Amino acid sequence: MSQRPENSHQAVLLRRLRDDGPVSRAELGETVGLSRSRLAVELDRLTDLSLVESPGLAASRGGRRSAMVGLASDLRFLGVDVGATSVDVAVTDARMRVLDLVSEPVDVRSGPTAVLAVVLDLVGKLRATGVFMDLHGAGVGVPGPVSFRDGVPVAPPIMPGWNQFPVRTVLSQHLGCPVQLDNDVNIMALGEMHAGVARTVQDLLFVKVGTGVGCGIVVDGSVYRGASGSAGDIGHIRVDDDGPVCSCGNTGCLEAHFSGAALARSAVAVARSGRSPLLAERLALAGSLTGADVAVAADAGDAAANELVRDGGRRLGLLLAGLVSFFNPDMVVFGGQVASGLGHPLLAELRSVVYRRSLPLATGNLPIVLSELGAQAGVVGAARLISDEVFSHE
Amino acid sequence: MSQRPENSHQAVLLRRLRDDGPVSRAELGETVGLSRSRLAVELDRLTDLSLVESPGLAASRGGRRSAMVGLASDLRFLGVDVGATSVDVAVTDARMRVLDLVSEPVDVRSGPTAVLAVVLDLVGKLRATGVFMDLHGAGVGVPGPVSFRDGVPVAPPIMPGWNQFPVRTVLSQHLGCPVQLDNDVNIMALGEMHAGVARTVQDLLFVKVGTGVGCGIVVDGSVYRGASGSAGDIGHIRVDDDGPVCSCGNTGCLEAHFSGAALARSAVAVARSGRSPLLAERLALAGSLTGADVAVAADAGDAAANELVRDGGRRLGLLLAGLVSFFNPDMVVFGGQVASGLGHPLLAELRSVVYRRSLPLATGNLPIVLSELGAQAGVVGAARLISDEVFSHE
Repeated sequence: MSQRPENSHQAVLLRRLRDDGPVSRAELGETVGLSRSRLAVELDRLTDLSLVESPGLAASRGGRRSAMVGLASDLRFLGVDVGATSVDVAVTDARMRVLDLVSEPVDVRSGPTAVLAVVLDLVGKLRATGVFMDLHGAGVGVPGPVSFRDGVPVAPPIMPGWNQFPVRTVLSQHLGCPVQLDNDVNIMALGEMHAGVARTVQDLLFVKVGTGVGCGIVVDGSVYRGASGSAGDIGHIRVDDDGPVCSCGNTGCLEAHFSGAALARSAVAVARSGRSPLLAERLALAGSLTGADVAVAADAGDAAANELVRDGGRRLGLLLAGLVSFFNPDMVVFGGQVASGLGHPLLAELRSVVYRRSLPLATGNLPIVLSELGAQAGVVGAARLISDEVFSHE
Repeated sequence: MSQRPENSHQAVLLRRLRDDGPVSRAELGETVGLSRSRLAVELDRLTDLSLVESPGLAASRGGRRSAMVGLASDLRFLGVDVGATSVDVAVTDARMRVLDLVSEPVDVRSGPTAVLAVVLDLVGKLRATGVFMDLHGAGVGVPGPVSFRDGVPVAPPIMPGWNQFPVRTVLSQHLGCPVQLDNDVNIMALGEMHAGVARTVQDLLFVKVGTGVGCGIVVDGSVYRGASGSAGDIGHIRVDDDGPVCSCGNTGCLEAHFSGAALARSAVAVARSGRSPLLAERLALAGSLTGADVAVAADAGDAAANELVRDGGRRLGLLLAGLVSFFNPDMVVFGGQVASGLGHPLLAELRSVVYRRSLPLATGNLPIVLSELGAQAGVVGAARLISDEVFSHE
């Protein structure tokens, strides 16, 4: 039941209503540059297609009150964020506002069949609540490289069994709607741009620090994926001449120095060295440590934990300083569980390094901020990704 | 006398003829997707505007021979490449083929009035040869950051007196045609994409190694300039924890380690240390050394000179490996006097480092090559830059 716009005027109208919400017909006509008669024709068709509706009359601007127009209130999109250890599934309205969200722990290494079964199970639960009848489209993010064109993961390091699995086709058949598949950082960047801190931004870097590290790149309001879809894969850029051996076989990679996994390793080392009674206590209690333990310890004033945060921030900051000089973004946003957990102490270190080491021209007006949507950035961005497709003409 | 296309169909036709040359009307209609009658209308208007002409009949494809159509053979564009120590001015036809080129040594530090006087003098010389009557547009590149929107240099480090000077307005008034101003690396990237080794490429990095180092970034066939126009300014990215103090005040910058200026400094040090009789001899003869001397010495098998090339290539390569992982380009092109002079030994070192240190996904099909246009990349790209504007609608 997925109706699509029939021409580029209709596509522009739909995107405008998605991004800015209901407006009066008069205002809408002005902003998209359509004549009154042409606007009426296109809106009539979109109403016939059940894509827009008129929720009432606008406030008077002097003279006859113009009718309001907005996207149909029963349009529903699905946003799916497959993480390393859990899956989030959200239903949104046509403006990508989350109406309901369910999660379930699942190891991505259990393979596509098992994980997609969990996704479809969660979709069934959402359907049972009556929050949607039909889906207009579904966006999906996974924690690894993706061929966006083919809708399949490509040699994803932490997703055994997923290589070339036809995620888009399989989900599209089961859900009965168009599906797009992308890398998790790309959808987080899109989410933050659609409804978060980067709403007004054209050229954006979204850096995710979770178990690994990745970067979503937005150029002129669209995700930039590069020649083979691996753009933004910054986890294995060299930040040091030597250092711990990385999972990729090289030494000196960013991820081997600073990431959720690296932080957990360093925390255990610090705990065992006797330099942090607090981390030692948590290690004795839980048998292992994570980035979250470092965040708690740093927050409690633990000197060794704070040093780990500062050291990690400095290394990531130096790499980022180079990328900022190269890419000259409007904004840099940090997200992901580890970045959110470490919060402002990490941000302070990153800012200090980037502002000191990037070109003044590139940092003059550069906000370096934390994600506003946090854990919801992925599902909102996934819904937005597929809406870009279904609200387009050809 | 600069006629512009009147609608987007005409703009598409003009660009198509610029990029691919004269074709039969039948073929042109097919590639741009216009009906026969609509094509006839638009081509008639473009003929009236003196922008296209019909040079004869095409070879038969079975049936009536279709008329050929091409850009008017008397359309002329100007490409101006202002370097640190000289100015190149070329006249091109509407396909950006260089018809005549003149150069003159001039120090960019003598300021905009003096340098633009040289440019206008060279234009006068070209006009005197009869190679053009009217100019359809002029593109200009300068060796420093530029506000593309305003057509002025912005705090360019090696161009005292040029900050905010209205280059575009002044030249436009004197030349009587539209003018665009850009950074020199951006126009070199455009030139290489228009007529050089990167003709089929969508996402490109063009790295210029001259006195300094800079990078032109092409995204989806267009120059990417970033939030404040400084994208690609990689000369001051940190490549080492310490190292020589850079002109910018920081330590460890790429330019302080590897650039024409750095190479000249290292060559003098090597010559004085007695490690290179060949460089010592050239130093004694000339009183100073340049990157070109290192190239000659390396070519002659001088071990110390070859070490300088390898060491520089390794440092630039390591930075580039990170940028390749981040940006995932279709191709990397090296140009500029120093890169061209050092040639394949430099290229070999760069390739070895990038292929070893970038993500396999990003380097799988990545050509790393030398500029094909060499010293003409700038003027061709400058002409192409302005043609993008005058062959557009609005």
